[in-house]
Amino acid sequence: MCIISSKMKSYITEALSNFFFEYETPRQVLVRNRRVGVVCRLIQLGVLAYIIGWVFIYEKGYQTVDIAIGSVFTKMKGVAYTDISGEERVWDVSDYVYPDQGGESFVIMTNFIITDGQTQSMCPELPDGKNTCNSDADCTKGQFKRTGNGHMTGKCVNTTNTCEIMSWCPIEDDRTIPNPPLLSVAENFTLFIKNSITFPAFGVVRSNLVEGVDQRYIKKCLYDPDEHQLCPIFRLGDIVRLSGFNFSQMAGVGGAIGILIEWECNLDLSLQRCIPKYGFHGLYGNAKEGESSQASVGYNFRTAKYYMEDKVEKRTLMKIFGIRIDIVVHGLARKFDIIPTLTAIGSGVGIFGVATVVCDLVLLNLVPKKDFYKNMKFKYTAVQDEVPVIQLDKEDQEKSQTENPK
Amino acid sequence: MCIISSKMKSYITEALSNFFFEYETPRQVLVRNRRVGVVCRLIQLGVLAYIIGWVFIYEKGYQTVDIAIGSVFTKMKGVAYTDISGEERVWDVSDYVYPDQGGESFVIMTNFIITDGQTQSMCPELPDGKNTCNSDADCTKGQFKRTGNGHMTGKCVNTTNTCEIMSWCPIEDDRTIPNPPLLSVAENFTLFIKNSITFPAFGVVRSNLVEGVDQRYIKKCLYDPDEHQLCPIFRLGDIVRLSGFNFSQMAGVGGAIGILIEWECNLDLSLQRCIPKYGFHGLYGNAKEGESSQASVGYNFRTAKYYMEDKVEKRTLMKIFGIRIDIVVHGLARKFDIIPTLTAIGSGVGIFGVATVVCDLVLLNLVPKKDFYKNMKFKYTAVQDEVPVIQLDKEDQEKSQTENPK
Amino acid sequence: MCIISSKMKSYITEALSNFFFEYETPRQVLVRNRRVGVVCRLIQLGVLAYIIGWVFIYEKGYQTVDIAIGSVFTKMKGVAYTDISGEERVWDVSDYVYPDQGGESFVIMTNFIITDGQTQSMCPELPDGKNTCNSDADCTKGQFKRTGNGHMTGKCVNTTNTCEIMSWCPIEDDRTIPNPPLLSVAENFTLFIKNSITFPAFGVVRSNLVEGVDQRYIKKCLYDPDEHQLCPIFRLGDIVRLSGFNFSQMAGVGGAIGILIEWECNLDLSLQRCIPKYGFHGLYGNAKEGESSQASVGYNFRTAKYYMEDKVEKRTLMKIFGIRIDIVVHGLARKFDIIPTLTAIGSGVGIFGVATVVCDLVLLNLVPKKDFYKNMKFKYTAVQDEVPVIQLDKEDQEKSQTENPK
Repeated sequence: MCIISSKMKSYITEALSNFFFEYETPRQVLVRNRRVGVVCRLIQLGVLAYIIGWVFIYEKGYQTVDIAIGSVFTKMKGVAYTDISGEERVWDVSDYVYPDQGGESFVIMTNFIITDGQTQSMCPELPDGKNTCNSDADCTKGQFKRTGNGHMTGKCVNTTNTCEIMSWCPIEDDRTIPNPPLLSVAENFTLFIKNSITFPAFGVVRSNLVEGVDQRYIKKCLYDPDEHQLCPIFRLGDIVRLSGFNFSQMAGVGGAIGILIEWECNLDLSLQRCIPKYGFHGLYGNAKEGESSQASVGYNFRTAKYYMEDKVEKRTLMKIFGIRIDIVVHGLARKFDIIPTLTAIGSGVGIFGVATVVCDLVLLNLVPKKDFYKNMKFKYTAVQDEVPVIQLDKEDQEKSQTENPK
Repeated sequence: MCIISSKMKSYITEALSNFFFEYETPRQVLVRNRRVGVVCRLIQLGVLAYIIGWVFIYEKGYQTVDIAIGSVFTKMKGVAYTDISGEERVWDVSDYVYPDQGGESFVIMTNFIITDGQTQSMCPELPDGKNTCNSDADCTKGQFKRTGNGHMTGKCVNTTNTCEIMSWCPIEDDRTIPNPPLLSVAENFTLFIKNSITFPAFGVVRSNLVEGVDQRYIKKCLYDPDEHQLCPIFRLGDIVRLSGFNFSQMAGVGGAIGILIEWECNLDLSLQRCIPKYGFHGLYGNAKEGESSQASVGYNFRTAKYYMEDKVEKRTLMKIFGIRIDIVVHGLARKFDIIPTLTAIGSGVGIFGVATVVCDLVLLNLVPKKDFYKNMKFKYTAVQDEVPVIQLDKEDQEKSQTENPK
Repeated sequence: MCIISSKMKSYITEALSNFFFEYETPRQVLVRNRRVGVVCRLIQLGVLAYIIGWVFIYEKGYQTVDIAIGSVFTKMKGVAYTDISGEERVWDVSDYVYPDQGGESFVIMTNFIITDGQTQSMCPELPDGKNTCNSDADCTKGQFKRTGNGHMTGKCVNTTNTCEIMSWCPIEDDRTIPNPPLLSVAENFTLFIKNSITFPAFGVVRSNLVEGVDQRYIKKCLYDPDEHQLCPIFRLGDIVRLSGFNFSQMAGVGGAIGILIEWECNLDLSLQRCIPKYGFHGLYGNAKEGESSQASVGYNFRTAKYYMEDKVEKRTLMKIFGIRIDIVVHGLARKFDIIPTLTAIGSGVGIFGVATVVCDLVLLNLVPKKDFYKNMKFKYTAVQDEVPVIQLDKEDQEKSQTENPK
């Protein structure tokens, strides 16, 4: 401890006091030149306007951002009636919505091909041109074709010219799709969407049943992009139309539509102004463009209901054409925070430096008296180490004289 | 090539050597003033502390961030027993979980209204007040009401005062919800969650079965927010309670709960410290606030089981009230990287410039000898071009004298 | 209005004109020193190269970024054949895919344990070692064990040494998993993926059926990471292999695989270069590492088909082992925009400031003639207020003399 002499101590103290009692600030030239002054002030004002206007007002750089965790619950309403060759039938929600649970992604059946009473047995393949055979040699026993529906038994059936297969028989015949679609009344079905979002960083929970959207209003309202933008009940026909498709066409072969629920909330304002905006768009290819190159249109899947009849397992196979709805929630909330404010100011000062650089370029290169200003701005040190350039020294002296005109 | 004369060449060489052998640095005034010095140093130290403390230590600006791709697998366990008017029945996982696959979003049935043996036939609408009719004229044949369950046949049934409809008959009567809930024992069901996350940018894979959570521990543990924060087995009653709801109430009418699995991993530290945190919150409206304006509470959906009886298609319709669980994975990993470090330093230098601006404002406006410091800092150029202002020239001379006091 | 005297007015006018016609620019020293010059220029060039190379070229800081909203539609193809103790059976897509709808997350059954004809009745628990009993006292009536399958009736069955329970009987016996897996032919099933993405900010819609991938190509192509990177048809065996697993092992006990579809689009280039990239990885634990600590491997769930037989409700319970496929879409598009360009330039100028700081450190501390350069750079003000330090004053004078050498 005693090693540090008092001399050393006083030296440190002095250095510290020097550090604390001193302060550097850059020396500047105040150029009194109308043209340069106006140009530079305008550039600086432009940068300032950009920073304030864009970073602060437009982009709201003084706010922190939080992304919502959303949750969606849906419920369809509506009953359809079909009369297929004299057999009357009514379809309710449990019959035409897949899956049942009311999640954010589901399919509303609009058309179907039903194959009743399939059993595990043998029957010839569908004569759709893909599975033709000429002799038993074309139907290798125990194998199956990529385009086929079951295991080949090794026989070629004469009547259909297709291989006999072991499969769920009879084979589904999906060569013709019912037209008009069987459940075209689906256009009038309604979809109720309940969406709740949470902004975890701000502890804010919000539902799409906002102020004014109460039980009474919901009972009679229907979403309309102009008049009822907040009604959470949507007519299926409207959803298809608003996403740019033709309902009867989509109902026939199926399709997929995305419903985007957008929340953009400025939590510095009243929470009541934090309301959802609904958007609709086609998911597989855009309806508006004539995309002839599209390799696969429509939306369909197969589902089976299994049952036992006379101790034999049977199933009803349905090829379902439907409108698949995917609901996507996109929520963004902003709130004032000191950190992004400081960061925005700091980066603004950085951008401001660009203005000075541009002004200096103008001043030192484009103004007639640029040499005069160069002298004012720069002080030169003689190159004293390696190459003494006399001319430079002279210039320097001149500059000194300019600087100190006495 | 010869066009460039040797003179030109030497000129370019000189310009290049000038560029490389010269270096500009701003000239500065070192203000020796205790008050100003202390104030400015404190401001600068504050900014420095902010940059280091906030940007580096708190926000970890020296690290890159990667968001996890998560995958969730769930499995419920537990058996329920009901005794509805003498009919005993046991419900296992396949009976009460929808859907079966063990995904991240599913419903646990806690209450239900069962309608057995529905067939496609005709029957009167439910007399629930919404579908009353006085005469056949109120029941237009072939139409259906938004509140109705089927296609009207055109007849008004006297006994019920409702329209006769073609539908799945008998109509479900959901006017009273069983109370207490039929599967209130669901409180003791357990949920096993297996969650795996991948940070693609860092090539790190991690599972919620972390070190110490092995087969033996899982067999007997139960999640507890205080003592067993890492046990991946959750009692349904605990999940509901931790999200702020009352179990018996939610079991009666249904509800939706989000389980948030949060991973915040600092990969500069040991991978073993990268562990999940479980959070629970209600999804539709907050349980803690008395939200009287809420237009729609509870969670329910309908599902049907189809079967053939005596060659007639029948179905068992169930209106299921349940607890829907949505599991959301939110993973964030950070790791040191040179690029964000440089960027953070650069933006720190930018923010540091603000300190100088503030200090200059103090020095040039609030200090008694501000004019003296202004003279030190600024050098004025006379306005020589357009408007020679004599007063300014004079000031300028004074300044020059102050600057060069000899 | 008349309160503002003409004097005041002229004062304001003058201040305004002063502001507009003046312009400050920092005074600088141009140091003519070969060593310092070269070092500083190299540092500055390095920073410039970093800004241009990294921020602009590599990170494309001049572009705005948009994240895609993706939508996925899937379809499996293939038929399986089983021969379980003489009972032949064919399985098609409706039989082995759960759920049916062709969404982004589904399970392909590869192995199963079937329990036919379960009814609500009484039977002894499975003697698997977990549910042994010695006397009726071990089987409390009306309770159920966590490891059990139903409500105990209070009886201990002698033949099995397990409690009698009320449950779906007979109890499933899942003690041995069929090996080889029953549907091992699933290796040859094919998966067709249709993926469409939307970049809402740029209004761009894109499908994975890009140019060249048309109906004709799809009919015969099969995804191959080297030769057919754009074919949207995948062999299940390839998917498992490419994610690092062994198919027959995974088919036996089940597993989960993520298919990542990555889009990275530079919309400043042709839209045709915006193509997807497919990646495959295991979801629960990494196959390549021998993770012995893993508490739970495989993937399975139970599902039941309900039916009525002789007026009694029965069900067929299946414990399904399968390959769960989760398809994750990750899309990123970039496009030139003026705002991020300006911001990148501004932050670049900020980083450039670091170069000057480093150079000054070199100049003022490491160069032999550092005191000379200090004199050039700094001008000192005497500490005139509190503590007049004579030595400093003297220094200052010297400096003034150095500065004005006449």
